[in-house]
Amino acid sequence: MQSRHYVLTVSCPDGVGLVAAVSGLLASWGGWLTEVSNHSDPDTKRFFMRNEIAAESLPFGIEEFRQGFVPLARRHDMDFAIRDSGTPRRVVVFVSRQDHCLVDLLHRWRTGELRFDLRAVVSNHPDTRAYVEHHGVAFHHIPVPADDMGRAEAFARIERLLAAEATELVVLARYMQVLPPLLCERYAGRILNIHHSFLPSFAGGQPYRQAFERGVKLIGATSHFVTPHLDEGPIIEQDVIRVDHGDTVEDMIRLGRDVEKTVLARALRYVLQDRVLVNGNRTVVFR
Amino acid sequence: MQSRHYVLTVSCPDGVGLVAAVSGLLASWGGWLTEVSNHSDPDTKRFFMRNEIAAESLPFGIEEFRQGFVPLARRHDMDFAIRDSGTPRRVVVFVSRQDHCLVDLLHRWRTGELRFDLRAVVSNHPDTRAYVEHHGVAFHHIPVPADDMGRAEAFARIERLLAAEATELVVLARYMQVLPPLLCERYAGRILNIHHSFLPSFAGGQPYRQAFERGVKLIGATSHFVTPHLDEGPIIEQDVIRVDHGDTVEDMIRLGRDVEKTVLARALRYVLQDRVLVNGNRTVVFR
Amino acid sequence: MQSRHYVLTVSCPDGVGLVAAVSGLLASWGGWLTEVSNHSDPDTKRFFMRNEIAAESLPFGIEEFRQGFVPLARRHDMDFAIRDSGTPRRVVVFVSRQDHCLVDLLHRWRTGELRFDLRAVVSNHPDTRAYVEHHGVAFHHIPVPADDMGRAEAFARIERLLAAEATELVVLARYMQVLPPLLCERYAGRILNIHHSFLPSFAGGQPYRQAFERGVKLIGATSHFVTPHLDEGPIIEQDVIRVDHGDTVEDMIRLGRDVEKTVLARALRYVLQDRVLVNGNRTVVFR
Amino acid sequence: MQSRHYVLTVSCPDGVGLVAAVSGLLASWGGWLTEVSNHSDPDTKRFFMRNEIAAESLPFGIEEFRQGFVPLARRHDMDFAIRDSGTPRRVVVFVSRQDHCLVDLLHRWRTGELRFDLRAVVSNHPDTRAYVEHHGVAFHHIPVPADDMGRAEAFARIERLLAAEATELVVLARYMQVLPPLLCERYAGRILNIHHSFLPSFAGGQPYRQAFERGVKLIGATSHFVTPHLDEGPIIEQDVIRVDHGDTVEDMIRLGRDVEKTVLARALRYVLQDRVLVNGNRTVVFR
Repeated sequence: MQSRHYVLTVSCPDGVGLVAAVSGLLASWGGWLTEVSNHSDPDTKRFFMRNEIAAESLPFGIEEFRQGFVPLARRHDMDFAIRDSGTPRRVVVFVSRQDHCLVDLLHRWRTGELRFDLRAVVSNHPDTRAYVEHHGVAFHHIPVPADDMGRAEAFARIERLLAAEATELVVLARYMQVLPPLLCERYAGRILNIHHSFLPSFAGGQPYRQAFERGVKLIGATSHFVTPHLDEGPIIEQDVIRVDHGDTVEDMIRLGRDVEKTVLARALRYVLQDRVLVNGNRTVVFR
Repeated sequence: MQSRHYVLTVSCPDGVGLVAAVSGLLASWGGWLTEVSNHSDPDTKRFFMRNEIAAESLPFGIEEFRQGFVPLARRHDMDFAIRDSGTPRRVVVFVSRQDHCLVDLLHRWRTGELRFDLRAVVSNHPDTRAYVEHHGVAFHHIPVPADDMGRAEAFARIERLLAAEATELVVLARYMQVLPPLLCERYAGRILNIHHSFLPSFAGGQPYRQAFERGVKLIGATSHFVTPHLDEGPIIEQDVIRVDHGDTVEDMIRLGRDVEKTVLARALRYVLQDRVLVNGNRTVVFR
Repeated sequence: MQSRHYVLTVSCPDGVGLVAAVSGLLASWGGWLTEVSNHSDPDTKRFFMRNEIAAESLPFGIEEFRQGFVPLARRHDMDFAIRDSGTPRRVVVFVSRQDHCLVDLLHRWRTGELRFDLRAVVSNHPDTRAYVEHHGVAFHHIPVPADDMGRAEAFARIERLLAAEATELVVLARYMQVLPPLLCERYAGRILNIHHSFLPSFAGGQPYRQAFERGVKLIGATSHFVTPHLDEGPIIEQDVIRVDHGDTVEDMIRLGRDVEKTVLARALRYVLQDRVLVNGNRTVVFR
Repeated sequence: MQSRHYVLTVSCPDGVGLVAAVSGLLASWGGWLTEVSNHSDPDTKRFFMRNEIAAESLPFGIEEFRQGFVPLARRHDMDFAIRDSGTPRRVVVFVSRQDHCLVDLLHRWRTGELRFDLRAVVSNHPDTRAYVEHHGVAFHHIPVPADDMGRAEAFARIERLLAAEATELVVLARYMQVLPPLLCERYAGRILNIHHSFLPSFAGGQPYRQAFERGVKLIGATSHFVTPHLDEGPIIEQDVIRVDHGDTVEDMIRLGRDVEKTVLARALRYVLQDRVLVNGNRTVVFR
């Protein structure tokens, strides 16, 4: 449906003329800028920009694009990335027993609503194997034992799998295991989680129980990048749903599922379209 | 608009036949039950019920109603309350400098949308005097000094005022002073606060600053009963509004105002209509 | 999870003592009323009531319950229905090519979130066969030709199927065929549709195109009972999602899918739990 | 709070290099672009752009800015406008008896949340005079008789008032009179209305009654530019609120008020910040 394009994202110290410098360079190559967004953070004095350029309007490919952009990037001390929408990201999805997010993502992937290269599904339980394989997707059952050595071995196996698949993005679709800090660091900014509460409220393993006991009138879900600090990474997307006194913990779990899958799908969409830039422990999301 | 009615609220240990016992007794008097709601808490095994009865359908007034209900209440160990919608509650509103909730409440009160007997507005600042008095409402400027003795004197004056006005309900409409614990206890379940965050996130005095720094994607407001424990009382109503990376702390304060006033107005409406029953540190809200 | 219960729904001319009469009769049998809701329509002067009764608290089964309720029902000219939560409804789901609602419903059905007896899926296209059969559910491909005779034959086949399965509820999960009026009448109040607009705006076949052209800032979906008048039946549930100038018709179709499946699932839940009573062309939904 | 800036809005036939051309010209003058947004309409092939430039970064004032921009505008057949945030718009507010939007706007204006030069309030009823004058704002009671001649005279008087105040923007804050077509045309794109329904549903004078009778589960409000065709102008902002079977028409009117005032305030904010560009009968709103 959507034609092929490049997305150029930029982050650098703020200053005059940055929009002009970037868009001017693109224009000098004949680049058709179909969407441009910028943001200046008044606290950190950093500048963020996202540019969507029609691929066929540029006289060269992505490598030459990158090389051509380097001088400007150097001059303004820019971090930048260029991605070709025609080269979908290589993704591995992790799941435990609760499969609502998995089912939701597989549908959006199968119908092309979300465009990515789904390399595999990994689970510490075998339950979802038949469903995943019905979609023609590889399924890896990697149990995670409770003991330290077993755990270490399981995650070593997981790391080898991620490497073998040249994984660019990991999606934790209700994966109920805590990742080792080293793995979080190795894939910093490339592991997306869905937490079943409106963070920072109710971090940890029993958020709906906590929400029930506090008597809140809305429950929520949060998608964030994973860091070594549990449930504290940069937030990408959140949403809530109303509950009342008649809702038990089980009702909250049920209602929460709808929020979890929607929030995760939205966050994943933003990431896949290179709409998310990390700004310290916050995110810039050019929706 | 709405015709006069009684509201009978009941809370007691759960059991068989409670709805029948209450509605049967009302029916035996010819009482027309225009609205009935119940709730059984599976954790505390308590039963809650709210009954709205057309006043003209009963052959007696509120005192006889109360006396007639006592035997049933005793038999089932019921806490109960009966209120006549024709006798609006006596309310005192507290405000500091931020007047958006005050302006909102005064409009709802003046137009009759919210029906209560507004006895006075109290403020630790003189700023809103002219506006309040324009509405024909008494305004009391009671500064609250920082020192302990001055503070104690100010709250003693406030308590005398509340007593003199036979105050049934206190509404803290962005009153930026912490009430003394004794006052909270004396008016337990009768002081309504609006806190400018989605509790339990961001309790305390700078919630929007905290929300900005954590990078949340929704901000909220919470109306709750005040207890001696700051921002920890039973929650009556909450709501949220979306923010994004472009919103500064000032933007959040601005956006939050709309949520604060709506949430407080809704919570106050529920309380005025006797729709809120306290259940430990949670509430039952029969909307 | 939830224990077995009966749901007794009642609709009759309004009057004094109806709640007491119903709850009193139930109490006389020892019936434990776990949830009670009522509504008096000031326009039509009709009374609606829903009672949830713990099954094990009654000394008899559903047939005796029905017979025992008849005298009271006659006295007050009541329409009433009693359903046993342990006897799930027999449901047939219809779908065309768009399968997001189907995938959503199958997941909720498979996990037991929605409890019903899924007899079959019917489609005018073969596309979803493998997916449906993967769930162990019978799939019937019944093409609907454009010509009158072919159409009539297709719907005759459909009616035979519905009869053979003793179908109690038909769910049109984005079924893009108009049902014959006679079928609508035969299954009045038992056919649930999801329409992809916020009715009454944008009835008909191209709602997202119409919404785009009108430039609305929210799009929605509506679940309603089907009547012979297209998109005009009693509305059960609606919801909306925000769009902006950057959203194309295709974006609206994508965003709308999330609303459609949520709205249909909620409406179906209400119907399965006997929370929906028809009141002329409106509904009473005891949520 | 916010520092002074210019807003440059542009609309022209789409093409390559437009962002670069505009931002490059601004950069050539040293202009600091604090916010940039663009939109390409795939249907009309038109390009829309909004640029926010720090005022102190430009070496000249608004007149020289305009003149300096003309050559580029001519080359690309651009409609453009430049506004100085330090020169607030001259606004006249119209109201009838329902004053909730007026009270809301006056508060936002008085506290500086919305920055505009409020020249006068006009009403066909005298009711709100004291309240308006309490705010130090001129109040004009201009009754609109039912007969054609009286009506014509009233609107002639209104037009003279608008001219005398050099009015740049008219806000109909629940003004229950239909404006003459000529007035609508003279102030095309400069009259903002709030309609108390989710358009295109329920245009006309009794939207809540219509909503009640159709049995919708959400009601809404719409702010739009006024055209000679009643309730059909370009929509700027909409929102909804949930209702249920228990809500009477009066309840809907009450609930709707909160949506009306929020929607109008948001739309007015967008207009005052030059975030709204008209695109045929739709709007581009750069939020």
